[in-house]
Amino acid sequence: MSQPGRVSLVGAGPGDPDLWTVRAAQRIADADVIFYDALTDANALVGRTRARCFSVGKRAGKRGVHQEAIHELLIRNARRGLRVVRLKSGDPFVFGRGGEEALALAAAGVSFEVVPGVSSAIAGPGLAGIPVTHRGLSAGVLVVTAHQPDVLPSMLSGVRPNQLTVVVLMGMAQRQAILSGLLAAGWARTTLTAIVSGAGTAGQTVWTGQLEDLPAAEGSELPGVIVVGDVVGVREMVAGFASQERDTAEVRHGRY
Amino acid sequence: MSQPGRVSLVGAGPGDPDLWTVRAAQRIADADVIFYDALTDANALVGRTRARCFSVGKRAGKRGVHQEAIHELLIRNARRGLRVVRLKSGDPFVFGRGGEEALALAAAGVSFEVVPGVSSAIAGPGLAGIPVTHRGLSAGVLVVTAHQPDVLPSMLSGVRPNQLTVVVLMGMAQRQAILSGLLAAGWARTTLTAIVSGAGTAGQTVWTGQLEDLPAAEGSELPGVIVVGDVVGVREMVAGFASQERDTAEVRHGRY
Repeated sequence: MSQPGRVSLVGAGPGDPDLWTVRAAQRIADADVIFYDALTDANALVGRTRARCFSVGKRAGKRGVHQEAIHELLIRNARRGLRVVRLKSGDPFVFGRGGEEALALAAAGVSFEVVPGVSSAIAGPGLAGIPVTHRGLSAGVLVVTAHQPDVLPSMLSGVRPNQLTVVVLMGMAQRQAILSGLLAAGWARTTLTAIVSGAGTAGQTVWTGQLEDLPAAEGSELPGVIVVGDVVGVREMVAGFASQERDTAEVRHGRY
Repeated sequence: MSQPGRVSLVGAGPGDPDLWTVRAAQRIADADVIFYDALTDANALVGRTRARCFSVGKRAGKRGVHQEAIHELLIRNARRGLRVVRLKSGDPFVFGRGGEEALALAAAGVSFEVVPGVSSAIAGPGLAGIPVTHRGLSAGVLVVTAHQPDVLPSMLSGVRPNQLTVVVLMGMAQRQAILSGLLAAGWARTTLTAIVSGAGTAGQTVWTGQLEDLPAAEGSELPGVIVVGDVVGVREMVAGFASQERDTAEVRHGRY
């Protein structure tokens, strides 16, 4: 073949294609084949690429394509000389298994690149008016996943209260463990807490309350980002204003 | 005036305009006036906007515009009916003081939106082939700034070794404090460590070594992202391959 194939590990951001990077949009447009994960809205691809698009994601309760099979798909298609996009919600390297795919591609001698994306860990709260860091409220942010429940308690146990913001991805099923872990680390039961679901989409919903109310918080069918820390209070101060603007485009798009 | 002004707090990502989001590129293109920070490459704006562009950033050793004066600039220009973009390196809510600006705008009754960006905390390591999370190596990431040296030790003291990746922004001058803090928390002196400078730009450089070598690591004039954790080892495994591709476009652009 005249041109060797190439794999782009591309972050899709929180959902809205407007939050793809310019480079991501180019790679998607130019791709021959796209393999996307369960959190990617396939509708976003319509009209934005001429590639053949395949879902390889796992949904709760349903099996997806095995990770090794995904590696094989990427390698095989690149070796056929195709431009392959592996599209991942958020950033490929934040709980996206992008590192494993990069290693598999490197081991196979397949040319690849990483196109970073807007991480839902930061943009999820941000799109709900919650800054993960804020002078006087939070000097850092800890991002963990509840996908490995055995590791979660020890990760949370050392986090000093009221200095950092804690963001938990894929944590909806582990809300009790998050509460227990943070209480054990000395966090107050009344610490402000939020769940942002469907961030940046028309269906964005935001629950806010106190840490102790987290396990009983009303669920959402959409994947939610859990945010614990004083920064959650910023939302009320900025959203109080935004609510007066209910008929502006920003509010209709669920940005506030 | 017929149309009220509006402020967009826009994340510019790590540097390359290709890593702006599609929405950021639109807001920049359509703006009447842009106020950008010190880490933004003003050359990136040339040809991409018809706005008047002003630097309001602080560079090491030089004073920038006071934060309150920035608020005033944003408010005054929005009230004149202009489309104002406040352009910030990375994401506006990761040590970007975006929260403070959002509060000031809300208090003044000025309509605004937040456009999340690709955070250098995640993309800096990522563009150097270092995934901040990786199955079996890191189940989370702690992002802190060394800009508040008094808070740094207590933030690091509780971080269990070898479970998380630690990313320090604006930490080049505080490398000794970072080393001391992590040693006190039980991290091994031999923990893999990297400094990524100028991530995603043509001038990207990457230093890797052991944690104990961090204070003596060769400095760079560019702002650097410090990464501590086993994930740094992934870079060698993927960069070993990429180095064979030295004359491809990806390598020339410093992506690997």
